[in-house]
Amino acid sequence: MKIELRRVNKAFHFEAKDSEGFSIQIDANPQIGGEGKGTRPMELLLMGIGGCASIDLGLILRKQRQELLDYKMEVEAQRNQEVPKQLTKVTLHFHLWGKLDASAVEKAIVLTLQKYCSVILSLNPSIPVDYSYTIHPNT
Amino acid sequence: MKIELRRVNKAFHFEAKDSEGFSIQIDANPQIGGEGKGTRPMELLLMGIGGCASIDLGLILRKQRQELLDYKMEVEAQRNQEVPKQLTKVTLHFHLWGKLDASAVEKAIVLTLQKYCSVILSLNPSIPVDYSYTIHPNT
Repeated sequence: MKIELRRVNKAFHFEAKDSEGFSIQIDANPQIGGEGKGTRPMELLLMGIGGCASIDLGLILRKQRQELLDYKMEVEAQRNQEVPKQLTKVTLHFHLWGKLDASAVEKAIVLTLQKYCSVILSLNPSIPVDYSYTIHPNT
Repeated sequence: MKIELRRVNKAFHFEAKDSEGFSIQIDANPQIGGEGKGTRPMELLLMGIGGCASIDLGLILRKQRQELLDYKMEVEAQRNQEVPKQLTKVTLHFHLWGKLDASAVEKAIVLTLQKYCSVILSLNPSIPVDYSYTIHPNT
């Protein structure tokens, strides 16, 4: 895997490009000189966590023949307030729509977080990853 | 910190939104049903690594009064081939343009990776993070 990143301005606006050519704008926190021109790196990490968890959860639910009518989720995280400002806690909130079996959903989420999600499994294992979920029977 | 993610199609295309409203398209590997409509989650993690390292390196070089005329970098990574497919190695390649002092650059990179970069410092410490850099005196 490989990504490239180039400077866009003399402050902290960067453009990253993935292996298929998709571009993403990155910028720093305004407190250190960012200008609000892109996503902050720690939020990209959270998006990686959310994307990977969502893909793996979807794959497992499909194998379980649980039909998802709609889906969204949120990733919240805390970090150290002092340097180094690494993650200290991650919480995932899943919203699933459909006639779903709660125990199958619970099992699928646990499998996702503990066995499949490559981004979460690349994190320091000392960072707790909690979750909650809501099943909405109808859209 | 908080990001949101919603399903765009019934395959694995998701849209993530950061706290300032920037949207990023995410999709899975075509091998598992992705349709090439966005960046893959592990590449978002690499962009987070690259973005954070670039911001912190820029801040340190500025404090050292090293003037960067231009800048780009690459993040390469290996991952497990079997589940769980987490990162196993990260390598950063920095390209810096300007009349820069090589020892100051080296020191700034080491400080960035070992003390400041929040994304790298959130990774499992067993994942090696290597680096190389090239100083280009002229643009």
